[in-house]
Amino acid sequence: MTTETTFIEALRALATHDAARGLDDDAAVLDIGGTSLVLTSDTIVAGVHFLATDPPQDIGWKLAAVNLSDLAAKGARPIACLMNYALTGDDAWDSAFLAGLKDALDTFAMPLIGGDTVAMPKGAPGVYTLTAIGQAPPSGAPSRNGALAGDVLYVTGTVGEAGLGLELARAGQPEPAVLLRAYRRPVPLLAEGQALAPLVHAMMDVSDGVLIDAARMASASGVAVEIALDQLPLSAEVRASNSDDLALRLAAATAGDDYQLLFAAPTGSMLPVSATAIGRFGEGHGLSLLNQGQRVALPSRLGYLHGQGVHNLHHPHNRLTLLP
Amino acid sequence: MTTETTFIEALRALATHDAARGLDDDAAVLDIGGTSLVLTSDTIVAGVHFLATDPPQDIGWKLAAVNLSDLAAKGARPIACLMNYALTGDDAWDSAFLAGLKDALDTFAMPLIGGDTVAMPKGAPGVYTLTAIGQAPPSGAPSRNGALAGDVLYVTGTVGEAGLGLELARAGQPEPAVLLRAYRRPVPLLAEGQALAPLVHAMMDVSDGVLIDAARMASASGVAVEIALDQLPLSAEVRASNSDDLALRLAAATAGDDYQLLFAAPTGSMLPVSATAIGRFGEGHGLSLLNQGQRVALPSRLGYLHGQGVHNLHHPHNRLTLLP
Repeated sequence: MTTETTFIEALRALATHDAARGLDDDAAVLDIGGTSLVLTSDTIVAGVHFLATDPPQDIGWKLAAVNLSDLAAKGARPIACLMNYALTGDDAWDSAFLAGLKDALDTFAMPLIGGDTVAMPKGAPGVYTLTAIGQAPPSGAPSRNGALAGDVLYVTGTVGEAGLGLELARAGQPEPAVLLRAYRRPVPLLAEGQALAPLVHAMMDVSDGVLIDAARMASASGVAVEIALDQLPLSAEVRASNSDDLALRLAAATAGDDYQLLFAAPTGSMLPVSATAIGRFGEGHGLSLLNQGQRVALPSRLGYLHGQGVHNLHHPHNRLTLLP
Repeated sequence: MTTETTFIEALRALATHDAARGLDDDAAVLDIGGTSLVLTSDTIVAGVHFLATDPPQDIGWKLAAVNLSDLAAKGARPIACLMNYALTGDDAWDSAFLAGLKDALDTFAMPLIGGDTVAMPKGAPGVYTLTAIGQAPPSGAPSRNGALAGDVLYVTGTVGEAGLGLELARAGQPEPAVLLRAYRRPVPLLAEGQALAPLVHAMMDVSDGVLIDAARMASASGVAVEIALDQLPLSAEVRASNSDDLALRLAAATAGDDYQLLFAAPTGSMLPVSATAIGRFGEGHGLSLLNQGQRVALPSRLGYLHGQGVHNLHHPHNRLTLLP
């Protein structure tokens, strides 16, 4: 039992309000004044969620994007956000961060309405928090826990680029730029989330990896999930990353920071956005893997756990962070 | 021009939405779905906003209390909050923090509905954020900028205890306990704020000191303010703290963390809560001080600036933090 697990269990005991969704979803959903708000707050820490050497404008973008991605996963429309910023004492760095944040907020029409700035003791790592508020879709914000046996598991876009981008960033390699960009400038899929919300049974974003996030959805829904690794949508750059096809597929399925949408929908659904069927939910529990019709053993690590967000708490024994 | 000022000016340029109130109030006020929400987010950092040696349960209490106090200053009723927590790796410490947080949230009927937990690099200071959402009073959330020439400046309760409590905590002295408690367990004046909201012209909480906060209110309102130091409400413990009456009054008026409510109301107002008239607004601008009818020079430091909250940004040249 890790410290995170203990703490989060104690938090759960505190967070008994319906809006908290048992701290088991991407966001809280609060009904108030005849409307339904989606609320999420993510903190990113230097050396944990990003590299201290990442360009500051990309860190600012990412802070907005990871929170907007949680809104996307609930089909929400951005309303407003608050930011809590640890001043670095370096005006140029702070300005660049703010420029990247502004890029993202402008791109996704998210007004900044408040927050806090704090001085930090010398040598402290950068710590940045954004709290995003969205309006739930008229059909209601999809949860993580509604997948049914027989549903198909879909994922939007392609996966695995950001994980490879992080490796490049760590190594100080500038190419392929498309991979670095996937890691540094993730795109929250707001329009896709809004379009999907009315028809999905469950939806979440892929922040920690397809395998761990699919396992979480299945666990929350009380069903099993089987994923066909050969169906994973991969870009040419990811395909080129490893000569061992199964190894690269497992790497792509366990890499974090993709911010694609993962969702459960009934067989035969007419999808309003492009997505790939990568698995199926069934009776029972747990995650199993197939490749070319053959059973594949689960890897020792199902995903990439940065810092155990309150909302994504399972499998903490698979924890992996950027920490030394 | 300090770094904070530069950064905050850049933030202001970004936060153009009406709800932001120009980043010049205790909280944002967002109209949505037929209701009006008050939103505030404060971050507290070890060694800046509290002492690393403070009892963890008091730090947890304080995180909730400082945010609830911002709601109180806007006459808001607590609706929900999200917390972002930096795990310490020390289960007992984390549990004690959570117990103190729970005390405050239970006492003031504030549900916790989400947030984030993050791992931190070794040696990083504790960093805790709470985002509080409240419902504005039917009469609207009072701003800081509505004081009129001729209005009386009032403060609730007594001031200066928390500042002395911080000195005791730093020195490791356990008495007087009432002063330590004022520093460690501030009480957000929610009922008082709600009762005052319909009749005040301007209201804020005293987080950084009576002088600096009154000067901010006057500046935001475009008026001058004169404070009579001899009218400051002081407890017996504060009166006993210094044999020089003027020195102790100046210390009490420039100490932070009081979390009393400071407000402007018309002369002759029938107040629904106990408060002391300590000054008057007039035409012009700036802050001036009287004691026993005699003009007193402004002290070199008007208040206690922890970390330059986005919402309380003036007089950064008077900055003083717990930082070494």
